[in-house]
Amino acid sequence: MSAQYTLAELAECCGAELRGDGDCRIHGVETLDDATAGQISFFNNPRYRRFLQDTQASAVILRPADAQDCPTNALLTENPYLAWARVTRCFAPDLNTGKGIHESASVDAEASIHPEAWVAAGAVIGAGSRVEANAYVGPNCVLGRNVLLGEGSRLLAAVVLMDDVRIGRDCLIHPGAVIGGDGFGLANDQGRWEKVAQLGSVVLGDNVEVGANTTIDRGAIHDTVIHDGVKLDNQIQVAHNVEIGENTAIAACTGISGSTRIGAGCTLAGGVGVVGHIELADGVHVSGASVVSRSLREPGVYTGGILAMPHKTWQKNIARIKQLDSMARRLKELEKTLSRLQAQSGENEE
Amino acid sequence: MSAQYTLAELAECCGAELRGDGDCRIHGVETLDDATAGQISFFNNPRYRRFLQDTQASAVILRPADAQDCPTNALLTENPYLAWARVTRCFAPDLNTGKGIHESASVDAEASIHPEAWVAAGAVIGAGSRVEANAYVGPNCVLGRNVLLGEGSRLLAAVVLMDDVRIGRDCLIHPGAVIGGDGFGLANDQGRWEKVAQLGSVVLGDNVEVGANTTIDRGAIHDTVIHDGVKLDNQIQVAHNVEIGENTAIAACTGISGSTRIGAGCTLAGGVGVVGHIELADGVHVSGASVVSRSLREPGVYTGGILAMPHKTWQKNIARIKQLDSMARRLKELEKTLSRLQAQSGENEE
Amino acid sequence: MSAQYTLAELAECCGAELRGDGDCRIHGVETLDDATAGQISFFNNPRYRRFLQDTQASAVILRPADAQDCPTNALLTENPYLAWARVTRCFAPDLNTGKGIHESASVDAEASIHPEAWVAAGAVIGAGSRVEANAYVGPNCVLGRNVLLGEGSRLLAAVVLMDDVRIGRDCLIHPGAVIGGDGFGLANDQGRWEKVAQLGSVVLGDNVEVGANTTIDRGAIHDTVIHDGVKLDNQIQVAHNVEIGENTAIAACTGISGSTRIGAGCTLAGGVGVVGHIELADGVHVSGASVVSRSLREPGVYTGGILAMPHKTWQKNIARIKQLDSMARRLKELEKTLSRLQAQSGENEE
Repeated sequence: MSAQYTLAELAECCGAELRGDGDCRIHGVETLDDATAGQISFFNNPRYRRFLQDTQASAVILRPADAQDCPTNALLTENPYLAWARVTRCFAPDLNTGKGIHESASVDAEASIHPEAWVAAGAVIGAGSRVEANAYVGPNCVLGRNVLLGEGSRLLAAVVLMDDVRIGRDCLIHPGAVIGGDGFGLANDQGRWEKVAQLGSVVLGDNVEVGANTTIDRGAIHDTVIHDGVKLDNQIQVAHNVEIGENTAIAACTGISGSTRIGAGCTLAGGVGVVGHIELADGVHVSGASVVSRSLREPGVYTGGILAMPHKTWQKNIARIKQLDSMARRLKELEKTLSRLQAQSGENEE
Repeated sequence: MSAQYTLAELAECCGAELRGDGDCRIHGVETLDDATAGQISFFNNPRYRRFLQDTQASAVILRPADAQDCPTNALLTENPYLAWARVTRCFAPDLNTGKGIHESASVDAEASIHPEAWVAAGAVIGAGSRVEANAYVGPNCVLGRNVLLGEGSRLLAAVVLMDDVRIGRDCLIHPGAVIGGDGFGLANDQGRWEKVAQLGSVVLGDNVEVGANTTIDRGAIHDTVIHDGVKLDNQIQVAHNVEIGENTAIAACTGISGSTRIGAGCTLAGGVGVVGHIELADGVHVSGASVVSRSLREPGVYTGGILAMPHKTWQKNIARIKQLDSMARRLKELEKTLSRLQAQSGENEE
Repeated sequence: MSAQYTLAELAECCGAELRGDGDCRIHGVETLDDATAGQISFFNNPRYRRFLQDTQASAVILRPADAQDCPTNALLTENPYLAWARVTRCFAPDLNTGKGIHESASVDAEASIHPEAWVAAGAVIGAGSRVEANAYVGPNCVLGRNVLLGEGSRLLAAVVLMDDVRIGRDCLIHPGAVIGGDGFGLANDQGRWEKVAQLGSVVLGDNVEVGANTTIDRGAIHDTVIHDGVKLDNQIQVAHNVEIGENTAIAACTGISGSTRIGAGCTLAGGVGVVGHIELADGVHVSGASVVSRSLREPGVYTGGILAMPHKTWQKNIARIKQLDSMARRLKELEKTLSRLQAQSGENEE
C-alpha cells in the first residue's frame, strides 16, 4: 500500500468530523492494538475499549460519545464502521493495470468492447456481447453470446457469464462465479428425465456483488433477477426464476430454490436453505444454517436447527425426538388423570 | 428466439394430440398469464386454472380432462409437463457455432479430436484424450490426459475433466464443474496426515447432466460411477467411490460422502447430506436439507431437521432439547407414581 | 499404471516388515477381494477378514497380529493404512510432463518463474509473482500480482490465486479453488451496503491440500492463515480472518465464518457450519452437518442436528418441537401437584 493521505483528506472522504491534526499523514489502516504511527484505526465495539485507550494509531474513527477515551487524533461520526469502510477503500490497490484487449484474449468479431474497457489475458467473449466503459473482464473469464457487462463492472477472474446475461453498472463478480447456467428443470417420462430448456436469462442490477464460486441460474421462461445493491457471498446457489430484492445481503453457502422471491433489505446468514416457490417479505432476517420451508410474510428474525453440543449429550437427548409425539400424548393423559384424582380427593381449589 | 413452428409440427414433436388450427404459427413459449398471440403455454397445476381461462396464448398444452377450460388451440396429453419440456427444447438456441478447433485452444499432439467436434477458445486438451463426434469442449475447459468425451457430449465453459475421466454420450456439463479431482483420502501418522493416492477415476454414463461448480471426485482404487440418465444440479459434491444409480436426480448443494451407493430412480432435494459407506435403495426420496446417516433399505420419503420459526419461539423451545432425556425419564416416573396412587385410591378401573 | 516394484522395495518405501518373497513383483494396488497376482492390498478393518483369507493378492499390508490369517506375502506394520498410503503413492502417475512455460500461457514480464517450474497452457501470471522450483501452475490457472507459489507446490487446473496470496511448499490445490477472493465485509448506510476493502491476504503453510472449488477469502486487515499440514476437501468456504491450526482436516461442504480460529489437530466432518468470531480448541472433532455456534474450549466430539427418518415419523414428532417449552413447564407442574397429592395421601416415603 503506497497510498498516503492527510487526515483532513480522509475526514473529507469518509464524511467524519476531524478532531486533531488534519495534516497528520496516514499511510495505512490497522486494528487498534496493532496500529503504529502513520496508521488509522476504528473503534466500534465497546468490548475493545482497552485497546482504544492504549492504541498507537495516529488517528481513530469513532463516535463522538467515545471521543474522551481516544488518546490521539479522531474522526468523529455516528457510524464508525461506515466511515471505516470508506477509508479502507482509499487504501485498496487499483485493479486495472491498463485498458484495451490483451493479445491472448479471444473476442468475437461481433462483440463490442468499449475503448475504455479492459479485457485481460485468456478471456473469451462471444458474438453480440457488449462490454461498456471502465468495465473489466479479468483473466480467463468467459462471456457467451449477447452478454451485457455494464459500465464500471468488474469480473475478477475465471468468471463465466452465459448467453444473454445482463450485468448492470459497478458490479463486482468474484472468481469462479457462474451466472446464467441452466436452471434445474426436468420432466419425468416413466422414470427417465427430460430436460426443460431454460429460455430465460439472468439480470443483475447495479452495485451487485457476487462471491467466488457462487452460481446464479437462468430462468426457465422469464429471467432470474437480482436487484440493485444485492450482496452475495461465496458459494451461494440461486436457482432459476428467483428474485432477490434491493440491498439484501446473503452470506456464504446459502442455497435458494427455484421461483422463490426474497424481499428487499433482508439478510440471510451463512448456510441457509430456502425452499422453492415461497416469498420472504422485506426485512426478513434468517439465522445461520436455518432452513426456510414456507413463506415468511412478516419482517423479523427466523431460526431453525439444533446446534452442536457434546456428542454424548446429543446422543442421549436426540434419541428422544422420535418419542416426542408419544411424550406429548402421555403428558396430556397424565394431566387428565391427575386432575380427576385431585377432584376425587377434594383438592380442586388451590 | 427466431425459431418458428406450426402447431402441427409442435404436436408432432411433443407427441400430443392437436385440437384446433394446426397451421397456427408459434414463435415462442410463455406462461399462461403473460402469453400473447403466437406463443404457446402449458397448464398442469389446477391452482392456475383462472390463468388458463383468460390466456391470450395461441395454444396451450394440457390434459384432455382440462380441455373444456381452454379458450384456444390445444395440444392434449396426459403428461403436459413432459410435452412442454419437448416444446421448450424446440425453441432453445443452438449451442455450437461451428466445428473444428479454435486457434487459441491448446490441444496436445497426441489427443484425438473428431472432425465433427468443436473445441472452443482457450480450451486445453492433454495427451491421449479423445473428443468424439458432435462433442463440444467450451471456452477455457481443461481436459487432462486420456480423457474420453463421448459423442454429442457438451462441456459448456471452464469445465475441468482430470486424467482418465470417461464421459458417455449426450452428457451436458455446466460451467465450473470439476470431474476427477482427488478423493479426500488421508492416513494419519502421529497427528500428521499423509495422502492416499487416488488411483481410480470417474465414469459418467450417457445422458448425464452435471450442474455448475459441482465436483465429482475420482475413486481411491476403483472408479466413482454415475450411471445413465443421472441429473445433478449445481454445487453438488460427490466424493470418491460413490455410485449413483440410473435416472436419479439430485438438487443443488447436496453432498454425498465417500463409498456411498445411491440407488436408481431416487431424488435428493437441495442441501441434503449423506454420510459415507451407506446404501440408499432404489426409489428413496430425501427431503431438502436432511442428513442421511444410515442405509435406507426401503423406498419412501425420508426427512430430518428442524425448520426455521420465529427466533423467540426457537430459542424458548430449543433450549429444552438438552432436557429431553430428563423429561422422558421424569414422564415415565410420573406415570408410575400416578398409577400407584390410583391403585391406592381404588381408581384402577376407568 | 506401468510402475512396477519388488515387494522388498515397497516394504522399504512404506516402512513395513517384509514377510515372504521380497523379489515378488508388484505392478498395482487392489482391494482384497478384487486383487489378482501381481497386486498388493491391505487389511485394516476386521469386518473384511473373510476377504483376507481368500485374497488372490500377491501381498497384503496388515498388522503383525493379523498375519496368521494372511495366505500370501505380507508387509507387517502397526499402521496398515499409513503404509498403504505410501504404497499407493508409488503407483500414482507423474503429474508434470515437462518444465518451462507453455507458449499459450501469459506471464507478466515482471513475474519470476523458476527454470525448474512448469507453467501449463492458458495460465496467466501477474506482475511481481514468483513461482519457485518444481512448482506447477496447471492449465488455465490465474495468479494475480505479487503471488508466491512455493517450491514443489502444484495448482492442478483453473485455480485462482488473487493478489498477494502466499502458498508454502509442497501444497496441492485442486481445480477451481479460489484463494484470496474478497472477504464479505459490508457496512450499512441507511439500508444500502458499502464495501469494506479487504486489505489482508491469504497465507498457506507447507503441505496444505485444498479441494476442488474450495474458496478461502483474504483477510480484512490481517491475513487469513492456513497452517502447515492442513487438509481441506472440496467446496469448503473459509471466510476472512480465519485461522486454521496445523494438521487440521476438514471434509467437504463445510463453511467457516469470519474471524474464527480453529485449533490444531481438529477434524470437521462434511457439511459442518461454524459461526464467526469463535475459537475451537486443539483436538476438537465436529460430526457431519453440525452447526457450531459458540467457542469449544475443550477437546472432544461435538454433534448437532436431527438426522433423517421416515417422513411420517418426522412429521408427527417434529410438530411437537414448538410445544417443547410448554411440555417442560407442564411436566414440572405435574411433578409438583403429584408430590403434593402424595403428601396428602401419606405416601411420602417410598
